[in-house]
Amino acid sequence: MTKLDELYAKLTLPTKAKLALVVLDGVGDLATKDSGFLTPLEAAKTPNMDQLSRESIQGRMTPVAPGITPGSGPGHLALFGYDPIDTQVGRGVIEALGLGLELKSGDVAARANFCSLDAEGLVTDRRAGRIETEECERLCAMLSAKIKKVSDAEVIIQPGKGHRFVVIFRGKGLEGPLSDTDPQREGLPIADAAPVDASSKKAQKAAKLIKAFYEKALPIIKNERPANGFLMRGIAHQPNIPTFEERYQLKAACLAVYPMYKGLAQLVGMDKIEGPQSISEQFNRYLEEYDNYDFFFIHYKYTDMYGEDGNFEAKKKAIEELDEALPILLQKRPDVLAITGDHSTPCPMKGHSWHPQPVLLTSDVSGSDKLDRFTETGANIGSLGQLEAKFLMRHMQAHARMFDKFGA
Amino acid sequence: MTKLDELYAKLTLPTKAKLALVVLDGVGDLATKDSGFLTPLEAAKTPNMDQLSRESIQGRMTPVAPGITPGSGPGHLALFGYDPIDTQVGRGVIEALGLGLELKSGDVAARANFCSLDAEGLVTDRRAGRIETEECERLCAMLSAKIKKVSDAEVIIQPGKGHRFVVIFRGKGLEGPLSDTDPQREGLPIADAAPVDASSKKAQKAAKLIKAFYEKALPIIKNERPANGFLMRGIAHQPNIPTFEERYQLKAACLAVYPMYKGLAQLVGMDKIEGPQSISEQFNRYLEEYDNYDFFFIHYKYTDMYGEDGNFEAKKKAIEELDEALPILLQKRPDVLAITGDHSTPCPMKGHSWHPQPVLLTSDVSGSDKLDRFTETGANIGSLGQLEAKFLMRHMQAHARMFDKFGA
Repeated sequence: MTKLDELYAKLTLPTKAKLALVVLDGVGDLATKDSGFLTPLEAAKTPNMDQLSRESIQGRMTPVAPGITPGSGPGHLALFGYDPIDTQVGRGVIEALGLGLELKSGDVAARANFCSLDAEGLVTDRRAGRIETEECERLCAMLSAKIKKVSDAEVIIQPGKGHRFVVIFRGKGLEGPLSDTDPQREGLPIADAAPVDASSKKAQKAAKLIKAFYEKALPIIKNERPANGFLMRGIAHQPNIPTFEERYQLKAACLAVYPMYKGLAQLVGMDKIEGPQSISEQFNRYLEEYDNYDFFFIHYKYTDMYGEDGNFEAKKKAIEELDEALPILLQKRPDVLAITGDHSTPCPMKGHSWHPQPVLLTSDVSGSDKLDRFTETGANIGSLGQLEAKFLMRHMQAHARMFDKFGA
Repeated sequence: MTKLDELYAKLTLPTKAKLALVVLDGVGDLATKDSGFLTPLEAAKTPNMDQLSRESIQGRMTPVAPGITPGSGPGHLALFGYDPIDTQVGRGVIEALGLGLELKSGDVAARANFCSLDAEGLVTDRRAGRIETEECERLCAMLSAKIKKVSDAEVIIQPGKGHRFVVIFRGKGLEGPLSDTDPQREGLPIADAAPVDASSKKAQKAAKLIKAFYEKALPIIKNERPANGFLMRGIAHQPNIPTFEERYQLKAACLAVYPMYKGLAQLVGMDKIEGPQSISEQFNRYLEEYDNYDFFFIHYKYTDMYGEDGNFEAKKKAIEELDEALPILLQKRPDVLAITGDHSTPCPMKGHSWHPQPVLLTSDVSGSDKLDRFTETGANIGSLGQLEAKFLMRHMQAHARMFDKFGA
């Protein structure tokens, strides 16, 4: 724990306030000539957010560090107030969470993908001709059927999209990270997974398991074509992160539709609330669960999805749809409400980016930045200024009056 | 010293410039619906600051860290350029300074308050029914008259407001911090003050002194009612802080009316200039002392005081009063002038807060942010941006051309 985190912990007071964090995934965007110099957030009709804006403060958040584009993992960990550089989560773990797998403490997870091998066992295609998802599912089912355990560890195999799948080793005394078995280029054999920290007994054990797993698995698919082998990457265990409740003294619930975000929330110990499939349903469920939690993380995927597609109109409509649903949430207005993204996903870039996402924060002690709308350009002149995303939680706590005065 | 502080020290050049820091205590505020979305600074008529603003730059300062509300101690230490987390001053010391006591290096100071004890010595009221100041003064006088020394240490007892007082132990080889003797709840005996660092010989000696002090003092007041005991908290020594002059090569003077701020200035080695009782008198005294110092810290209390009262109109008027006096200061315009607060004290909160205070900085090389007024909303878009308060001194030094170029 840093000195500053220690100070926050020392000053933390209990609260009866309700805090809500509404994440429009990838909401930040770019104003370009092609879009008439408007971002989707600026082009969208958002009467409800406009109304909120008058009693809110705004700012722009650097997700990780200047110029760094985060994946969903670091993006959300920062929103949850964890330093995204100090709290790195292995890609195997993120991938497993994204496929909806429930990880347990001590699990070692790996991203895997099918590949093609020649008669000598050398990799001839690292992605097995990018086989279809159905073929991947069939092969994973074959492996799952024949391999339940390796040594004393349970093995869980879950197909993903295309040639990708995830393998989880659930046993005692395991840990990552291990080096990839992907040799990075064709013409080489599958590499051994080796402990990154050579002195770790637990990682040595995990390395042996993976070797044994290969010895069992390769014979099962050896006659398949083109996918007669597989490579493993990002082999890691679920990190030991202090839970959200330990860190903030807030009992937290996750209202997300997509597994990745439920997984990330679960990683910090939030309760996953299952059921809601649309933002209206999510907000309605918030109303029902209002008394049961202190903190609500409400995740909205579509802004990111359409940003990735480069579909300006659809991203704009997705924002309008959320805005239309907002009055449901406001029926029991949270004492502290933040609306933001986990990063930007600019339509012109068709992908995540480093551009700071706008954030709006409102509470009875937020005052007002006197901005008529919640937009990137407005957020530039808000009193939250440019801040690191990891500090948003601290601002929210302050607005919930959760910090005692520091010093006399 | 941090790497950055080392760099600043290395680059520091002597200067003939005059620097002035005018602190409107707690000036920052919130724009709310109730106040027509204006802050006191925005509502106030401030023709002189408006005039300055055109040749100034502005920004907003985070007093300590996001969401952290500082007391006057950390607030001012940050303004004086000291990291307020690394440079923590014990509450006993702050309290002693606030009562106008002169502390010497090595003094151990404690906040104390009278309490009620039952026949078994258990605390029945931790505040002795909140006795009047006069009663506290009488009891302190009794203790002072009979206890001049404990072992080889001088004892200084000074009454405060209500049930509160301060005890200073002045001797050799003493240090804090010690744990509180306040048991935190009724029904328990007075606790022993124990060294926080159990291995510190100096703190052990201080702990023994405090035990001996109790043995002498309790019998003196044992027949008093309701205040027949006392509790001690925040037992600490004056920290060893490099002086302002050592740190900045600036000979500094403090023009403050209230003892707390004189005390804080004294803590970093500024000269206290006694006499002035109003802001006009403070500015006039600045004119007189102009040639004697390089740096002037001019403290104005009333903005904070009326903020604590939640009195918007009075806070606004206090700002107008300072503005009216400003031309006196400008008769000998400082080469570098900063006007700011040590934190915000928003009227709606009736207390200190974490909201960033606005800052205005003017010099012959400040340029202009082209803002017509000095306000919170204007400061949001100033070229100083959002900065940590501890960096204001470095900006002031830079504007005084006190830093050599870094690297070729």
